Amino acid sequence: MGTRVFGEPVKRREDARLLTGRGRYLDDLGRDALAAAFVRSPHAHARIVDVDVSGALDVDGLVAVYTWEDLPGRVGEPLPLLIPHPALTHGRTGYPLARDVVRHVGEPVVMVVARDRYLAEDAAERIRVEYEPLPAVVGIENAERAEYLVHDDVPGNVGAVLVQETGDAAAAIDAAPHRLEFRLSIERSASTPLEGRGVYARWDADDGSLRVYSSTQASTSVRAAIAARLGLPNGKVEVVAPDVGGGFGVKIVHPWPEEVLVPWAARLLNREIKWTEDRREHFVAAAHERGQLQDVRVGFDDAGRVLGLDVRILHDHGAYTPYGIIIPIVTSTQLLGPYKIGAYRAEVVSLYTNTLIVTPYRGAGRPQGVFCMERTMDRIARHLGLDRADVRAANFIQPDEFPYDQGLTFQDGRPLIYDSGDYPELLRKVRALIGWDGFEAEREAAARRGRRIGIGVGVYVEGTGVGPYEGGHVEIDTAGRVHVSTGLTSQGQGHETVFAQIAAAELGVPIRDVHVTTGDTRRFGYAVGTFASRAAVMSGNAIALACRKVREKALRIAGEALEADPRDLEITDGSVHVRGDRSASVPLRTVAVLSNPLRYAFDDETAAATQFAVGRPATEPPVAEGDEPGLEGRGYYSPVRSTFAAGAHAAIVETDPDTAEIAILRYAVVHDCGKLVNPMVVEGQIHGGVAQGVGGALYERMVYDESGQLLNASFMDFLMPYATEVPRIETDHLETPSPLNPLGIKGAGEAGVIPVSAVIASAVEDAEGLRVEAMPLSPDALYELRERASGDPGLRVRETARAGGDGAATGGQFAAGVSGALPPSERGR
Amino acid sequence: MGTRVFGEPVKRREDARLLTGRGRYLDDLGRDALAAAFVRSPHAHARIVDVDVSGALDVDGLVAVYTWEDLPGRVGEPLPLLIPHPALTHGRTGYPLARDVVRHVGEPVVMVVARDRYLAEDAAERIRVEYEPLPAVVGIENAERAEYLVHDDVPGNVGAVLVQETGDAAAAIDAAPHRLEFRLSIERSASTPLEGRGVYARWDADDGSLRVYSSTQASTSVRAAIAARLGLPNGKVEVVAPDVGGGFGVKIVHPWPEEVLVPWAARLLNREIKWTEDRREHFVAAAHERGQLQDVRVGFDDAGRVLGLDVRILHDHGAYTPYGIIIPIVTSTQLLGPYKIGAYRAEVVSLYTNTLIVTPYRGAGRPQGVFCMERTMDRIARHLGLDRADVRAANFIQPDEFPYDQGLTFQDGRPLIYDSGDYPELLRKVRALIGWDGFEAEREAAARRGRRIGIGVGVYVEGTGVGPYEGGHVEIDTAGRVHVSTGLTSQGQGHETVFAQIAAAELGVPIRDVHVTTGDTRRFGYAVGTFASRAAVMSGNAIALACRKVREKALRIAGEALEADPRDLEITDGSVHVRGDRSASVPLRTVAVLSNPLRYAFDDETAAATQFAVGRPATEPPVAEGDEPGLEGRGYYSPVRSTFAAGAHAAIVETDPDTAEIAILRYAVVHDCGKLVNPMVVEGQIHGGVAQGVGGALYERMVYDESGQLLNASFMDFLMPYATEVPRIETDHLETPSPLNPLGIKGAGEAGVIPVSAVIASAVEDAEGLRVEAMPLSPDALYELRERASGDPGLRVRETARAGGDGAATGGQFAAGVSGALPPSERGR
Repeated sequence: MGTRVFGEPVKRREDARLLTGRGRYLDDLGRDALAAAFVRSPHAHARIVDVDVSGALDVDGLVAVYTWEDLPGRVGEPLPLLIPHPALTHGRTGYPLARDVVRHVGEPVVMVVARDRYLAEDAAERIRVEYEPLPAVVGIENAERAEYLVHDDVPGNVGAVLVQETGDAAAAIDAAPHRLEFRLSIERSASTPLEGRGVYARWDADDGSLRVYSSTQASTSVRAAIAARLGLPNGKVEVVAPDVGGGFGVKIVHPWPEEVLVPWAARLLNREIKWTEDRREHFVAAAHERGQLQDVRVGFDDAGRVLGLDVRILHDHGAYTPYGIIIPIVTSTQLLGPYKIGAYRAEVVSLYTNTLIVTPYRGAGRPQGVFCMERTMDRIARHLGLDRADVRAANFIQPDEFPYDQGLTFQDGRPLIYDSGDYPELLRKVRALIGWDGFEAEREAAARRGRRIGIGVGVYVEGTGVGPYEGGHVEIDTAGRVHVSTGLTSQGQGHETVFAQIAAAELGVPIRDVHVTTGDTRRFGYAVGTFASRAAVMSGNAIALACRKVREKALRIAGEALEADPRDLEITDGSVHVRGDRSASVPLRTVAVLSNPLRYAFDDETAAATQFAVGRPATEPPVAEGDEPGLEGRGYYSPVRSTFAAGAHAAIVETDPDTAEIAILRYAVVHDCGKLVNPMVVEGQIHGGVAQGVGGALYERMVYDESGQLLNASFMDFLMPYATEVPRIETDHLETPSPLNPLGIKGAGEAGVIPVSAVIASAVEDAEGLRVEAMPLSPDALYELRERASGDPGLRVRETARAGGDGAATGGQFAAGVSGALPPSERGR
Repeated sequence: MGTRVFGEPVKRREDARLLTGRGRYLDDLGRDALAAAFVRSPHAHARIVDVDVSGALDVDGLVAVYTWEDLPGRVGEPLPLLIPHPALTHGRTGYPLARDVVRHVGEPVVMVVARDRYLAEDAAERIRVEYEPLPAVVGIENAERAEYLVHDDVPGNVGAVLVQETGDAAAAIDAAPHRLEFRLSIERSASTPLEGRGVYARWDADDGSLRVYSSTQASTSVRAAIAARLGLPNGKVEVVAPDVGGGFGVKIVHPWPEEVLVPWAARLLNREIKWTEDRREHFVAAAHERGQLQDVRVGFDDAGRVLGLDVRILHDHGAYTPYGIIIPIVTSTQLLGPYKIGAYRAEVVSLYTNTLIVTPYRGAGRPQGVFCMERTMDRIARHLGLDRADVRAANFIQPDEFPYDQGLTFQDGRPLIYDSGDYPELLRKVRALIGWDGFEAEREAAARRGRRIGIGVGVYVEGTGVGPYEGGHVEIDTAGRVHVSTGLTSQGQGHETVFAQIAAAELGVPIRDVHVTTGDTRRFGYAVGTFASRAAVMSGNAIALACRKVREKALRIAGEALEADPRDLEITDGSVHVRGDRSASVPLRTVAVLSNPLRYAFDDETAAATQFAVGRPATEPPVAEGDEPGLEGRGYYSPVRSTFAAGAHAAIVETDPDTAEIAILRYAVVHDCGKLVNPMVVEGQIHGGVAQGVGGALYERMVYDESGQLLNASFMDFLMPYATEVPRIETDHLETPSPLNPLGIKGAGEAGVIPVSAVIASAVEDAEGLRVEAMPLSPDALYELRERASGDPGLRVRETARAGGDGAATGGQFAAGVSGALPPSERGR
């Protein structure tokens, strides 16, 4: 590689644009478009008796009103079940507009198109829908009780039952020296991106083609869905993901009802139509995640080694299963983390409720799995009186055991085999970073000052870079610009920077010459999408492979121009020259001219290229057999299986003895995503992930009442951490390159969020000495836990064993260890 | 090949659309766009003293007015010289809007943009341009005299002098037993498509991209030109050629001033803008062709074999040379036709005049060259008293002499080597078809009835399928539709049909499943363009190569699905099955699903595909190394050199002894374009070509007065043949496959037009017994020739020799030989 840009903390190239208001988000587009609005169900479960649109018809500026009856053919069919699975015996999806029955609050019933959004909302408000309410199923316990059914034809509200096992877990547990059994509970949360969903469609009647902008994580799949629904060839549907203000998973679902309806109406009306989700809509009509109950049985030996583990996962899937059962599959497989378990059985039961659908949110089932495993490790340590970190270490897969086969089937249907890693070293580093071994002294010093602090740790493994493939296209134009495109989309992760680094490094060009396009089907038509921490691994490697083809072609052509052996050439600063000798060189922009036997007279570079007497002999074709004109290449990366990143987090928290307020004093992350393309971008991802994890650990929940109304469907009521609640995050890296891909990289997008609930739970438990089995842990919840513990000694852990943070008790001043933390009394929230 | 469609007279698939008014021509697009109009020079040569736009400014609806001073950077630079040539020492091009000096009537001076075309024209009329007239150079003799200069810095008005020779022509002529020397004159004509030029541009500010529709023959090159001028990457400029109502060469020039200015203003104003050329504009602001004077010296032996030929070609290039000197190069090289000439020298002198630019028009210099060669053959025959056909036969390259090297450099810069042909057989067939050997009896029978008829013949060779390349892309989608795209454009030739035949034949699919896109840079970005009878040869073969890749991939995947060896499989009616056994088969639409490891749940075919247990082993990547997802392939065809079609035409004409009116009684064509893809389409091309040739032979001229005003710049004054003037054309085919390309085909687009002037001249000369040395031959011209001949016996040919149509004198009734012809007195024109 020529220029040293791979692995450097290059500043994010998109930030200049995004931070100065020059981003082009969906609602920045189509300012003259008609607006769509939706009448949505106010009931969690009801039969639609009548829809009376007459009141809307005299709204000036109204263009159209559609109900399910108006949707022709495939437009009106139920939405697809994206990822079928044999275990999902009772998969169900909704209609683009509700037909007969609504099954959650927010389900779209009527679509209104009007001159602008105000008028569309006014018209929507005048539409009278008569409902016959039906009993709502809310909460996992209610769903399991199955007094009422979400779908008449789904007995017991059970969509899927899936068992995975290695060995005989029940027997192993029964035979183990020690056994524990407990239930864990994880609340619902949601991706909650700054920008909600949005679709803007324009039909080109001249061309018979459709352009759709969607704030999506999967533009090629949205294209395929729209094409299928509208009966258009893929080639007549262009889907572009413009700047997207965060996705975190919710925008990988496709097609959303609105992604079908808005393009359909745009074609029908031959008018541009736009719909942008408002915040309340996002809360009730997009998707949630996380909600699970886990029943754990574990057997272990005196050293804390797990001999058998049995987990029954009750998963709340909401009203429909458009995305299949990928989340509980991930929970049940990734739960094992860095550990080798004697025998394992996981049973997933996926349950319907009359609540918003549940689809992947950053971490996608992993935070629940890690919460389960790490709570279990802590329980074992407390039970045996061992150091919590030591118990983890006792269970680790060792560095010499890779590739390590967990004996399960992963989310991609392939064997769950870890490719590389060094978990002991991760733990060693995070212990050092957080000061694990000196923590007892800190705790005691704090206690002397009336403060209650605790320390927690969590280790996890994350399958990243899931297949089946991603492609990259690289073209060097006659101005020397390098155009890199890949089909997957960007939601602010820094792809423009990272992909440009990869291309610049592979090609030997200045990074400023590299222009990256993502998520535009006009530029790259085959893609899977941005999710599962796969963008850098998949598209990064595909782009690298494409660059290598372009580089090879460039060296061949330049070799002819310079009359040199291509093997002796290298590329520096965008010019090809003999290795180590820059006296004679040919710029890549000139190579681009030379690559095309059709020379354009209006191209400045063509004149420049004439100095090189390059032309194929008159006895041969101008384009050689097997060659193509142009200095471009395409590459696909398709891995045998996922690559496994890992990390260890540790935190020190303080709990207020009076108010039960919880503050994170320190947060340390040691992260291993293989070779780092850009440590600054990875750290940014970690920071963002931890921040979302803090939300999940302490604040975020979806408060449904028993009738299925979401009581906190606004940012006034739904608590997210502000910068004041998120600690400074201390990071360190480990690099165990992946042997599976040319760049040796692993995904990093979700990492930060995964173990946070587990780590905070571990630390609060340590601070309070009370068993933490449910997240999020609000002051209310902690207060209630204290109250309950006062009557139930079984909820106390410290008495049983005073382990955790034990060891050398010579720690320094508490104040020094809690840099930047405010005393609880001074914290705003 | 599965289905038998290659070589069949499949009806044109585009006709149902085009003939029922469903074509989408440029002016059908952008109905809400702003309109552009141009103030054009009324002077052939003048200095611009002042432009006063103030009068236009109060036109309601005016949006913008631009003069050259308003054009920034490269937008205002002179237009490119598209095909530079070392001999073109003084190439000159105009500015998009005139700067200081105008050099022909019609040159654009001011651009006006307004709400609609009416307003734009109104505003344009109010703009006052003050000119200082300069002396105009009109006509080749005036240009050569160089009393005045078109360009101050081009001495003698000579843009280029190019000599090509084989052997010592002067010496060979001087030593020959017989010598002749004469001057020939060919008038100007023009492509005159039914639809003029037009550009419609829209800027997408959201996307930073430009969509340009242009009625062009070269959308990729227009894209490159606009991108270069506007400083945009190619990828941000989409150029689409919609339905185009004829091109015939004039639309291959690029960029036209309007193709730069309209997109530039559309971006600047961020408004859609359209300009469509009106008929007068087309006459004075597009391009002409043909105009040449040829000074011929020829030496030959007693058998009429040409021992030496020297031709000096004075070529009228008009005011600028944007397309280089390709026309006279073609004239001077293709002039040799099917003959082997002892020694040959051609000198091309390209001259500037203050008239519209001269760029290729169907035939592109060949009609002039064939006129020269065939007039020469007739002169030799008359001189020696030999049969005109026999003299041609005596000079033919023989079928066993291929590949035959003419020893010259062709228009593509490669050696002029004919690949295949059978000229004696062509001549034999056309003699039989027209009844050459029985013509004297017909003539005498006619003479007895007071009618004067004559017979003529002409043979030509046409280099077709010029490189450097063309590409094709073929994709089979999951509905089984076959999407074929190629970069070159269509102007009504029947590409949709012919390319679909090729794809259907190669793939074994029903032709109704094939959808062809041409000239859309969004679909295929590399192309050269549609000209030089190259579309079928170049894109046809590229598409065939692409199909073969797709077919190979389809058989491989189907082989896995059917558990059969791909070599045992074939495709019939869009389904793959074991050869000769259709009991088990897999439809291509299912193969398309299987080709992409990402299966879409919303695709009906995906469900159908599940019956085939195809999936790559879990130990291998989902996309195999070197493979790509999708059932598609791309192919490029890049020939070593051009392939040479040929033909022989013969005609019987009748001239009115009183009015000098000329009627074509019969017209016979024997044509060899190698393997026929679709004889009906080829015959349609021949018919259209002959019709245009009849125009050039008898009617069309550009009547410039001495000040450079085009006096007949309308269809009221410019004569074109109607259906009443074009005879029924009798055709026969010969197929000498080209060994240069996989399909064995040769181009056919220009063929019909090439020898018509020569054949009509030959026949009129034969009827009148008067030497015909200038075309077109109007009744006026023939009458004048008769007058001159009455005082100059040297203009008479019949006295010298009564050859031509001699031989067996036993022909039948004249009336039988002139099927469908009216007596001159009853003809309308």
